[in-house]
Amino acid sequence: MCGRILSMKVLAVNCGSSSVKCQLFETSLEAVQGNCDRQLGRVLIEHVGAAEAVIRSDGTETRRPLADHLAAIDLAVKTLSPRPREIDAVGHRVVHGGERFSAPVEIDDAVAAEIESLCDLAPLHNPENLKGLRAARAVVPHARHVAVFDTAFHQTLPPKAYVYGLPDAVWRRHRLRRYGFHGSSHRYVAWRYAQIHGFARQDYKLITFHLGNGCSVSAVEGGKSVDTSMGFTPLEGLLMGTRSGDIDAGAVLHVMTKEGLTAAEMDALLNRRSGLYGLSMASNDMRTLLDLCSRGHASARLAVDAFCYRARKYLGAYFAVLDGCDAVIFTGGIGENAAPIRAAICESLGSLGIRVDLSRNAAATGVEAKVSQDRSGVEVWVIPTDEGLVIARDTLRCLEGIVE
Amino acid sequence: MCGRILSMKVLAVNCGSSSVKCQLFETSLEAVQGNCDRQLGRVLIEHVGAAEAVIRSDGTETRRPLADHLAAIDLAVKTLSPRPREIDAVGHRVVHGGERFSAPVEIDDAVAAEIESLCDLAPLHNPENLKGLRAARAVVPHARHVAVFDTAFHQTLPPKAYVYGLPDAVWRRHRLRRYGFHGSSHRYVAWRYAQIHGFARQDYKLITFHLGNGCSVSAVEGGKSVDTSMGFTPLEGLLMGTRSGDIDAGAVLHVMTKEGLTAAEMDALLNRRSGLYGLSMASNDMRTLLDLCSRGHASARLAVDAFCYRARKYLGAYFAVLDGCDAVIFTGGIGENAAPIRAAICESLGSLGIRVDLSRNAAATGVEAKVSQDRSGVEVWVIPTDEGLVIARDTLRCLEGIVE
Repeated sequence: MCGRILSMKVLAVNCGSSSVKCQLFETSLEAVQGNCDRQLGRVLIEHVGAAEAVIRSDGTETRRPLADHLAAIDLAVKTLSPRPREIDAVGHRVVHGGERFSAPVEIDDAVAAEIESLCDLAPLHNPENLKGLRAARAVVPHARHVAVFDTAFHQTLPPKAYVYGLPDAVWRRHRLRRYGFHGSSHRYVAWRYAQIHGFARQDYKLITFHLGNGCSVSAVEGGKSVDTSMGFTPLEGLLMGTRSGDIDAGAVLHVMTKEGLTAAEMDALLNRRSGLYGLSMASNDMRTLLDLCSRGHASARLAVDAFCYRARKYLGAYFAVLDGCDAVIFTGGIGENAAPIRAAICESLGSLGIRVDLSRNAAATGVEAKVSQDRSGVEVWVIPTDEGLVIARDTLRCLEGIVE
Repeated sequence: MCGRILSMKVLAVNCGSSSVKCQLFETSLEAVQGNCDRQLGRVLIEHVGAAEAVIRSDGTETRRPLADHLAAIDLAVKTLSPRPREIDAVGHRVVHGGERFSAPVEIDDAVAAEIESLCDLAPLHNPENLKGLRAARAVVPHARHVAVFDTAFHQTLPPKAYVYGLPDAVWRRHRLRRYGFHGSSHRYVAWRYAQIHGFARQDYKLITFHLGNGCSVSAVEGGKSVDTSMGFTPLEGLLMGTRSGDIDAGAVLHVMTKEGLTAAEMDALLNRRSGLYGLSMASNDMRTLLDLCSRGHASARLAVDAFCYRARKYLGAYFAVLDGCDAVIFTGGIGENAAPIRAAICESLGSLGIRVDLSRNAAATGVEAKVSQDRSGVEVWVIPTDEGLVIARDTLRCLEGIVE
């Protein structure tokens, strides 16, 4: 796993319905090994298709109309590289790989068609990812294109963990199972934990929290995901910025009946108006909520308490699934920066051998750091993730034929 | 808590939509203390309101038309007691006590009206309970009547445990929160565990599994429920005979959209055609499923594996909630009788200090027994529950003014 190729310039692309995020990386297998590959630049474009798109790059912000993803990616590529032909590869974030894709894959027309056939499972995400994919293939036609799936890492879940208690015919007909998301992030922090420890063992048992605006937690054993909190959709599991997370299906049906909501309206309520935002009636931003808590805001306090309490329950659940663990890892915007949240999730868990060092924890903001006490039976770490970097690395490894 | 009254004859009544279960007990505070109160007789009537009701009592089965709950309870009382006036009290199982009732309560017209106002929260159950209540007050008018609520024991859950991640206005408007059920059963086995240990401590931390056709698990600390797996309705939580248990709300809405189901139809699918029955395509009966497993039935194996796996996750979650526990207790039809299920739920949990003694476990069928190894840090017990007995005791205590 060293020295076989020169470095590669990889463009990581992440497209939403009206947004395009492009990051250009220079990476190589040696750089990955040394954790020293670097970002050359990034462009974030929002409001694509609106009267005026907002383009952010290197601290500057400009505005101009951009009709579609093609125009946006064309602009991003020209901004990032005066010679687009130097881009060797493009890595695309694709949310849903279904049961078909359990690893990154180089994109040809057949693969693109397969991704299209999965739109049914992720109607809000895959179609947007596909728009970006088509646009980038047109803008950077000489490069090799790779799809990196949010779901791929979790394809190792055993049936008892991915099955729902639905009638057999129903779940098979609709391919209803726990897919899980944030896979690249969970995989990266698990890999990085092993790297920090010099890959001394292959059998680490880890509980990885990705806490951002979307939140999920995974149980990882021997580098493989064995369970994860997001499910068929990214709605299940932990409390999130605007998503409810776990909820009694009976309560969902009760609300629909009482309020006369369609399935689409209920979906919007649970995905966009719930979670921290809905409970607090104030914000979906954890910084704002922690500030409100310090000023005695009762609803913000309830939202934050429920957030941490649910995370504790998953921590315990996965501790049992793994029969113990080596480390609990926090990543994502909240996981990397909100020390009080990490402390609340891990407090009073001496029975599991988890002992956070409060001063180490308070000092760790957005940096890689061990925040547990040295005598803690279970290590607690903050490991910043970078989805763009993970996509670039996965693209590199895919094209190098490296399977982990 | 001793010697203040003579024994009392208490009729425990449990009414479903077309069923009436009546048990007559003789009990007293001394008998409760000695765990020696006894059932004098029981009558189970099914198909009330159909062309022919089936009446079972003392091993005999007879059939005759019974128009309604009034006729059924009248027959049951006459069967159980030649002198109905000797019945001192009637304890009624009422499924939903909402946020209003956190303990058993003597029924007068005002209380009956309050129970009626809670029908909206349990439209399938409270109306049937009320029919039985009205009928029994007519048949045994001289007795004192007490309502015993499935939800009452769980009214001690803290907000962070009972709140769902819904918009504040939505959950308040519809009183949407985790209520929990099987409360009498969880409370009984927790109390009995303390009694077995001579009430040596008040602060036992327990995880109590009620595994029957409906299944739930509770975290109990100091005799109080601090979390439980059933929620706003009895659909949430563990996999059950015909109920899905936990499921991604996104998956529920996806099925409704794809299959064109109304909320009522989806509710029926999740409550009546799912769970062990739906997954196995064979049975909702654990004995049948274990038998099928032993003959290599793949779907039965998946259903049983998923059942035990989900129970393990809750065990771990509540272990974290309690920061360790003194005992795991199994009750209910499956919990008391299915040794392989208990073993599978508790296997490989040495990291939590849980070590089952396999021969003790295999020998414990329907009897009270410790089934953990003596060196196990956490005790594992089988404690048979008897919902009728619990209702009778709660009725006695309520009328004696004893609050626990």
